[in-house]
Amino acid sequence: MGVMRLGYVHAKVTDLEEAKAHYGGTLGMRLVHEEDGRVYYKAWDEYDHHSVVLEAGGVGLTKLGYKVARSEDLEDFERRAQAFGCTTERMSKGDNLAVGDGVRIFLPSEHVLELYADIEVTGTETGTVNPDPFPAHLVGVGVPRIDHALLTCEDVGLLERFFTECLDFGVAERAVTELGENGKTIGTWMFCTNTPHDIAFIEGANGKLHHFAYYLNDWNDILHAGDLFSMNDVSVDIGPTRHGITRGTTIYFFDPAGNRNEVFSGGYITYPDFPTITWTADQLGKGIFYIDRELNDRFTTVVT
Amino acid sequence: MGVMRLGYVHAKVTDLEEAKAHYGGTLGMRLVHEEDGRVYYKAWDEYDHHSVVLEAGGVGLTKLGYKVARSEDLEDFERRAQAFGCTTERMSKGDNLAVGDGVRIFLPSEHVLELYADIEVTGTETGTVNPDPFPAHLVGVGVPRIDHALLTCEDVGLLERFFTECLDFGVAERAVTELGENGKTIGTWMFCTNTPHDIAFIEGANGKLHHFAYYLNDWNDILHAGDLFSMNDVSVDIGPTRHGITRGTTIYFFDPAGNRNEVFSGGYITYPDFPTITWTADQLGKGIFYIDRELNDRFTTVVT
Amino acid sequence: MGVMRLGYVHAKVTDLEEAKAHYGGTLGMRLVHEEDGRVYYKAWDEYDHHSVVLEAGGVGLTKLGYKVARSEDLEDFERRAQAFGCTTERMSKGDNLAVGDGVRIFLPSEHVLELYADIEVTGTETGTVNPDPFPAHLVGVGVPRIDHALLTCEDVGLLERFFTECLDFGVAERAVTELGENGKTIGTWMFCTNTPHDIAFIEGANGKLHHFAYYLNDWNDILHAGDLFSMNDVSVDIGPTRHGITRGTTIYFFDPAGNRNEVFSGGYITYPDFPTITWTADQLGKGIFYIDRELNDRFTTVVT
Amino acid sequence: MGVMRLGYVHAKVTDLEEAKAHYGGTLGMRLVHEEDGRVYYKAWDEYDHHSVVLEAGGVGLTKLGYKVARSEDLEDFERRAQAFGCTTERMSKGDNLAVGDGVRIFLPSEHVLELYADIEVTGTETGTVNPDPFPAHLVGVGVPRIDHALLTCEDVGLLERFFTECLDFGVAERAVTELGENGKTIGTWMFCTNTPHDIAFIEGANGKLHHFAYYLNDWNDILHAGDLFSMNDVSVDIGPTRHGITRGTTIYFFDPAGNRNEVFSGGYITYPDFPTITWTADQLGKGIFYIDRELNDRFTTVVT
Repeated sequence: MGVMRLGYVHAKVTDLEEAKAHYGGTLGMRLVHEEDGRVYYKAWDEYDHHSVVLEAGGVGLTKLGYKVARSEDLEDFERRAQAFGCTTERMSKGDNLAVGDGVRIFLPSEHVLELYADIEVTGTETGTVNPDPFPAHLVGVGVPRIDHALLTCEDVGLLERFFTECLDFGVAERAVTELGENGKTIGTWMFCTNTPHDIAFIEGANGKLHHFAYYLNDWNDILHAGDLFSMNDVSVDIGPTRHGITRGTTIYFFDPAGNRNEVFSGGYITYPDFPTITWTADQLGKGIFYIDRELNDRFTTVVT
Repeated sequence: MGVMRLGYVHAKVTDLEEAKAHYGGTLGMRLVHEEDGRVYYKAWDEYDHHSVVLEAGGVGLTKLGYKVARSEDLEDFERRAQAFGCTTERMSKGDNLAVGDGVRIFLPSEHVLELYADIEVTGTETGTVNPDPFPAHLVGVGVPRIDHALLTCEDVGLLERFFTECLDFGVAERAVTELGENGKTIGTWMFCTNTPHDIAFIEGANGKLHHFAYYLNDWNDILHAGDLFSMNDVSVDIGPTRHGITRGTTIYFFDPAGNRNEVFSGGYITYPDFPTITWTADQLGKGIFYIDRELNDRFTTVVT
Repeated sequence: MGVMRLGYVHAKVTDLEEAKAHYGGTLGMRLVHEEDGRVYYKAWDEYDHHSVVLEAGGVGLTKLGYKVARSEDLEDFERRAQAFGCTTERMSKGDNLAVGDGVRIFLPSEHVLELYADIEVTGTETGTVNPDPFPAHLVGVGVPRIDHALLTCEDVGLLERFFTECLDFGVAERAVTELGENGKTIGTWMFCTNTPHDIAFIEGANGKLHHFAYYLNDWNDILHAGDLFSMNDVSVDIGPTRHGITRGTTIYFFDPAGNRNEVFSGGYITYPDFPTITWTADQLGKGIFYIDRELNDRFTTVVT
Repeated sequence: MGVMRLGYVHAKVTDLEEAKAHYGGTLGMRLVHEEDGRVYYKAWDEYDHHSVVLEAGGVGLTKLGYKVARSEDLEDFERRAQAFGCTTERMSKGDNLAVGDGVRIFLPSEHVLELYADIEVTGTETGTVNPDPFPAHLVGVGVPRIDHALLTCEDVGLLERFFTECLDFGVAERAVTELGENGKTIGTWMFCTNTPHDIAFIEGANGKLHHFAYYLNDWNDILHAGDLFSMNDVSVDIGPTRHGITRGTTIYFFDPAGNRNEVFSGGYITYPDFPTITWTADQLGKGIFYIDRELNDRFTTVVT
């Protein structure tokens, strides 16, 4: 069973009220708790207590939490991470609101990864008895769930090794400078579910967040999100368009603090035996933005 | 009844074979005739003989043809155009392949407009008895029909007057430098059907083509077109995105000669009593590209 | 210019409060006036004062109003209707709330048709200056506008003649018992706009309403409407599916009184020279419901 | 890792040529092998050798194959199945074309289930280097992959126990006669991936196939499939519509032999900790067909 999913994103924002207007009002996440300069949000189709934590002060990623299927696996993951050379520490129930014991891993990319098996389960908004397919009254975009995060790091190949060797992730796609032995990995999209990516890394500064993403149902919902972004003066980075990598459709946009978000839909299904796809650097424009085939500067330079 | 629709676009292309690959192979129009360095195309849902004529040599617009409902109206349109100050001339059956008698008007914008009531009717590909909603075997994008053209001219207000006063078009939307008496019209979107625009003008050099457009069924077809543009190495200008003006969804792209095309879908319904919408210059980015709210340079500078 | 569009549907409902929950709550029309057992609704993208009038008591159609472009044409339509053999009467400003003078025609089908050129214009919800493509906060389905009505009558051919000869409608599609001279017209879909139908008749009892329809943007909105119908316990007749006739996508459903409504999207564009499509009786199942190709009994027997 | 996915469906058809027209021509699967009255098909986005095997003679299901991640797990699954009381047998490389060694389990429902870890990998049609999101030239519906199968059996609860206890499947949804202790399970939707169902059972005769399904990208592709079914005279059972159970959108239809197929899209994401959804018998119409909320007779009675 292993790692099940991206469970939470803990990020910093410069202004909590602006962030609340964005994550609550525009994206339509539900505020589930507010305390000590932190706000906790969940999306309507998530059953765990929360999936996004925003903390006043600065910008960028504090940490990511991935939920594992069984608490008895935590020790194994801890051991493998240590063997890989990572510093780890135990986290106790209560260190994170509503989250149980776990393991905190300091990645070679200087990101913090928390693994845990227990978090308070509060249910989705449609419930578990004769549910409707969605709640009748959603706010704004009405995002159903978070999906993945893309981080930057100096040594992408190293991070790919960490996630595959220590956490049993598969590699859906890989961007390389060239095919063959001399090729260097400059991007990797890895999965622990059957989706194209649960975490991804591209080459850049250590410790930085490129974006975290929400899943939307389809291409029409992507357009609807874009329309609402315009109505709500959300800064749009690029899109709507299609990614070559993952085949997904997308809009990149920024929260008021400057953290990049994504609404994402589509993408193929992966399995443990999925044959990894390779993108060569000369086709990377097409890989990232399939339709116009041009990487804008912001994509590679703006991170938080 | 008056003017019914944009009937044909006659454009110049630098290389006829490349143009055929684009209009026939990628867009999926059907080649209906080829003669003397000209190719004639129609789209599958059009019943007239052709809707696009491409002529080898150069780039840009040769002329536009608008079909009127009754041949007896041609004289009236001719008179009104002359009274407006336009030079006109009669065109005879056979001047244009498969097209009957008509009136040629030299617009104040230095574009050539042909009005005609008769053209050989060859039928749509689905026919008129128990038809399927679309042909089972389409090529490429499989565009069903042409929709409108956007031209540039020095005096947009003048052209708006011509089309409303001489040809009974309505004005769906207008872009102005500012609201009120001092506002100057810098863009106008006019209709003779119930769509948002059958012809449009924005400020620029006289005699130039900004783009001509194909109608697609919906936003999903816009994405599919974009995917095929990438597969076929079509140069994409911008999109997929939404226009604020017309509410339509769109991709702008270029034919191999550099003429801008558009695939367009959606948009509201207009009627003769439609209250004209006004866009102010400060919101024009949003008016043209609703989601990212930024006019790129190409939009205003690249014309043919 | 002639007749511009279906302007209003005036129908009877057994229970006004239930009707308000349906037309206001589920469909999301805006209540603009309530007086003397009548409620007046408009949809968000309509600029006239109202488009649906519901009257307590019974079920079925009271009358349809079609707006004409110029008041000076009313007399001509009146004369032609009289020459066709119809009884007509003048209606005065105020006979219908917010509606000006007009002509009332008693159709050979025993339906009442009102023609008028003036109605108070109150504007759409997005306005005419730098408008958004839709209002941010819609209720329920959020229908943008009414689209057409389908009525039943004993002599479909006669009604087709009336609308084409007296009101200049075109015939988009026609259902016949068989091709050729012996074929009898059993259905006709007619247009005064560029849509596939502004009014339609199928064979049945005189004076009855088969359905009136709302336009939705696309097939995704049709699904969304269907989902909301389920959530709101709306009785669904059939759909979502595609019509062969008009190519549109559809759900038929019933208001609480039993009047059939439709949400409709898509369909081709018509022009005055549109070549009429013919459906033969043996293919009528496919014509009405293209995908499953089966007419259910309700379609032909349930009218109000 | 365990069981990865439904790998192949092996079914009987009355006429192989008709079946080829359906699975190859209409659905657009690729014929990869034909021998001894058997045809082997794969869909364009599948990398294994084949996913559907059709065998001349009769109708119904021969067997299902599920691919497991590691051959070393086969023995464990075999042991657990035997402990559950199932008869099992070893299958050898070559028993099934292109498939390696495996375990054959005779389910308590009298269906045959084959587990295997090795099958010849022949790749998808878009490849693994700078791939396009789909092949430019697809035939018919162009289904990308098979998705799941729904079988009937006398004791649904028993089969649910088998798949959860022996093969580590999760239960996404369950239909019960009533809530509480006295409730009997009459339907179960189970997953080994992150989709809502990789296999499902409803109450009925043992050994029967209700349907097997293809995944499509979205609701628009569902409509397009329905259109092609009409053009190709495919017998449509029901749809397009939405399922309450799984939230997916669907069309059920029959192959020429009478085996029910489905095109399916959407549905939520599941994880090992997914809280099982329960449908009560009184809401089962809504659970199966969410929009019209009525089970037709065919759904429960027609199986092969």
